[in-house]
Amino acid sequence: MKTKRVDVAIIGAGTAGLNARREAEKAGASWVLIESGPYGTTCARVGCMPSKLLIAAAEAAHNVAHAREFGVNVENWNVDGRAVMERVRSERDRFVGFVVDSTESIPEEKRLRGEARFVGPKSLQVGDHTRVEAKSVVIATGSRPWIPPQLDAIRDDVLVNDDVFEWEDLPESMAIFGTGIIGLEIGQALTRLGVQIEFFNPFDELGRFSDPKIVAKAHKVFGKQLTLHLKSDATGVEKVDGGYRIQWTDLNGEDHERVFQHVMSAAGRRPNVEALDLEKAGIPLDHRGLPISDPRTLQCGDTSIFVAGDVSGHRPILHEASDEGRIAGANAAQFPDVQATVRKTSLEIAFTEPQMAIVGERYIDLDPDEIAIGEVSYDNQGRARVMGANCGLVRLYGRKSNCRLIAAEMFGPRVEHTSHLLAWAIQEGLTVPELLEKPVYHPVFEEGIRTAIRNLAKELRVSGQCGPQDRGEGPGA
Amino acid sequence: MKTKRVDVAIIGAGTAGLNARREAEKAGASWVLIESGPYGTTCARVGCMPSKLLIAAAEAAHNVAHAREFGVNVENWNVDGRAVMERVRSERDRFVGFVVDSTESIPEEKRLRGEARFVGPKSLQVGDHTRVEAKSVVIATGSRPWIPPQLDAIRDDVLVNDDVFEWEDLPESMAIFGTGIIGLEIGQALTRLGVQIEFFNPFDELGRFSDPKIVAKAHKVFGKQLTLHLKSDATGVEKVDGGYRIQWTDLNGEDHERVFQHVMSAAGRRPNVEALDLEKAGIPLDHRGLPISDPRTLQCGDTSIFVAGDVSGHRPILHEASDEGRIAGANAAQFPDVQATVRKTSLEIAFTEPQMAIVGERYIDLDPDEIAIGEVSYDNQGRARVMGANCGLVRLYGRKSNCRLIAAEMFGPRVEHTSHLLAWAIQEGLTVPELLEKPVYHPVFEEGIRTAIRNLAKELRVSGQCGPQDRGEGPGA
Repeated sequence: MKTKRVDVAIIGAGTAGLNARREAEKAGASWVLIESGPYGTTCARVGCMPSKLLIAAAEAAHNVAHAREFGVNVENWNVDGRAVMERVRSERDRFVGFVVDSTESIPEEKRLRGEARFVGPKSLQVGDHTRVEAKSVVIATGSRPWIPPQLDAIRDDVLVNDDVFEWEDLPESMAIFGTGIIGLEIGQALTRLGVQIEFFNPFDELGRFSDPKIVAKAHKVFGKQLTLHLKSDATGVEKVDGGYRIQWTDLNGEDHERVFQHVMSAAGRRPNVEALDLEKAGIPLDHRGLPISDPRTLQCGDTSIFVAGDVSGHRPILHEASDEGRIAGANAAQFPDVQATVRKTSLEIAFTEPQMAIVGERYIDLDPDEIAIGEVSYDNQGRARVMGANCGLVRLYGRKSNCRLIAAEMFGPRVEHTSHLLAWAIQEGLTVPELLEKPVYHPVFEEGIRTAIRNLAKELRVSGQCGPQDRGEGPGA
Repeated sequence: MKTKRVDVAIIGAGTAGLNARREAEKAGASWVLIESGPYGTTCARVGCMPSKLLIAAAEAAHNVAHAREFGVNVENWNVDGRAVMERVRSERDRFVGFVVDSTESIPEEKRLRGEARFVGPKSLQVGDHTRVEAKSVVIATGSRPWIPPQLDAIRDDVLVNDDVFEWEDLPESMAIFGTGIIGLEIGQALTRLGVQIEFFNPFDELGRFSDPKIVAKAHKVFGKQLTLHLKSDATGVEKVDGGYRIQWTDLNGEDHERVFQHVMSAAGRRPNVEALDLEKAGIPLDHRGLPISDPRTLQCGDTSIFVAGDVSGHRPILHEASDEGRIAGANAAQFPDVQATVRKTSLEIAFTEPQMAIVGERYIDLDPDEIAIGEVSYDNQGRARVMGANCGLVRLYGRKSNCRLIAAEMFGPRVEHTSHLLAWAIQEGLTVPELLEKPVYHPVFEEGIRTAIRNLAKELRVSGQCGPQDRGEGPGA
């Protein structure tokens, strides 16, 4: 048993952990990075990158299927599942390779392999070989997919997104439990690639939308292109020849059953804390046993223990994990001089088609008395129509008291881009009249957003507390 | 001969003219709208909309041709020229229809048909039927394609963009004179649709780029996918059986000739002023006989005559024509109370692939001693690579004295979106450190822009006058 003394011990070599150690290094602190699994981040290995690669293939198939609309005739085409997965895996391996190389370039004495657990607030046991005594600790252990109890009977066979990206070919069929962002992204992509996908969810949420009008639109649009069994009880799940039989009762109380080649859980993710023996860390825990931390400092109570990334539960998204790693790493190195950071405007995007985005707070978390709402339909928006992508609804929320744009729920084409425009504007505190002074080219998807802003301006005028000027209605919306 | 007395006479019922009359109406002024051609704006009839429809078809063809890269096999495909042009024309007609309907809904007594010419500063003759006496005049007569003298021999047969959008089928081949935005957009789209396009230009500009590194990149990229005869003298142009023979001398002094089914001029546009008898208007004219006006008021000298839209020569782009119509219309109605307006941050986009954009001033108009430059290559940018669109270069210009982003030349995928983000930030006066605080999702094209901003931050630090903080390097670039 060796003992290692450092200023900062970082548990987890993912995005948050790697950023935390960079900050510790910058601050001149001594540090050690502890990892029990393979190197490579969740994002690169099983998250953002491989899912976007699968979606790119799905988009290629969709474009081929719809080329005739533009005057391009395709006589014969097919999806080569092996080729699809070959590109997904090889590009994924390339992205992962960069992270692994960069992690392995860290001097060996600063990397510890093995599972870490607290033996005291400033003391960690790593595997059975090393004791780490640290002035501060950053917990950056990430999260893993959760498998709901209704799949208990086949628990060991249930796939998660990690498994999908290891496929060498596409399957015939798959049942997906969950209609959150991960489920919809992967499930829609596979549907477009010809896999028979059916979704199951005892509830009826789609992605993270909360605005009733956007939720209704999403149900209508996805309901047409995907096989959704929402508010459906899966009454039986069992392994049979050739796959897994799912039995379910639909909304009308009718019973159904079908055999799927695979079953995947996309029912959410859970922070990785079980192995940590957190009760010995002396930090505040919530009722689920998860560390409670201040999102602006990532500090747990007034201890020298910090959390960062998915495990923190604040904002389980890559760019936020990246920020949290920096904040936690810097504060761990400077402890007890802990600095509060103003977090960025929240931005969530799902790369479905239409795309989904939530900017700032969700509608459901806003006080309806304090806001006015502006909206635009993309069902006939000029450029979207030109591109054959005219479908969607965007709703903007403005604060009556100061006429500022504060949040948006967005369901439509290319909202990955327009959501950035709005997130930056919201973070800058721009008012609706200020937004109307900004240039918008023609013909672009951004004109739809301007229409929504004009609509919001009108609603704010009606509310009587703001008097935004709109310099008129140009062509193109 | 009738005589009509109004507060504001507006010559031209395009985007600028229609917006001018809306402002006149709002201000309670009496007005008349004079148009000699068909109703419908340049944008809807022969500009932005039909070109984007042609480009959408080209993109569909390109997507089919490149589907295999993603694992989607297409065995047989072809471009149905008649179907392509049918969609272009029918959607174009739909967009034009809205403008025509809206124009025809204007009360008949406020619309005059016929060519207008000045008979005095406040007096217009329209056709041979009406004399208009106006307190103010807005000239919004637009522009038309210019045909260079080297095409004189076949002048009556030369096509312009207007003609292309009337085609019922695609031709076999066409020579395009000019490699500006219009030429490149249409020529690249037709190339992708299988038309044999060759470009001729005695100079070597591509679009409006002025930054030598961006210019070089554009030459390299377009040089591979398009047949460009730059710095080439067309020594002979004549009509022959089956088309038009072009003879030219290339850069090495070698002579070539080839017969093309059509010849198109895309060598720029000229303001429509010839019919106006401007010398009787009593306004300042430049050496080409064009009205000189203040871009912030659109006023010509201190007269009650205003210009708006393409004819003004300030910013011949739809959204700017729209703004100019509003500014000129409001000022004409309120004359002599003329208000100066701060114009929007300049934004030019070409919908080629890669796309081209110029935000703020062009590089060539900046003082090299006052700026630092940050750049990013899109040749290996994460998301662009995922989408198979990894090609391009973006250069950002920051002012050393105050660390503000002031301009950008952009050549890359989806810059129609990222250029909006930068244009809004520039208009808001954001500094480079402020830009680095804004959220950027992963994996998105916007991460490339953030890399360029980080690079600019570094260059500004080197310049010593700014000390922008960069909170670190997240994954994804």
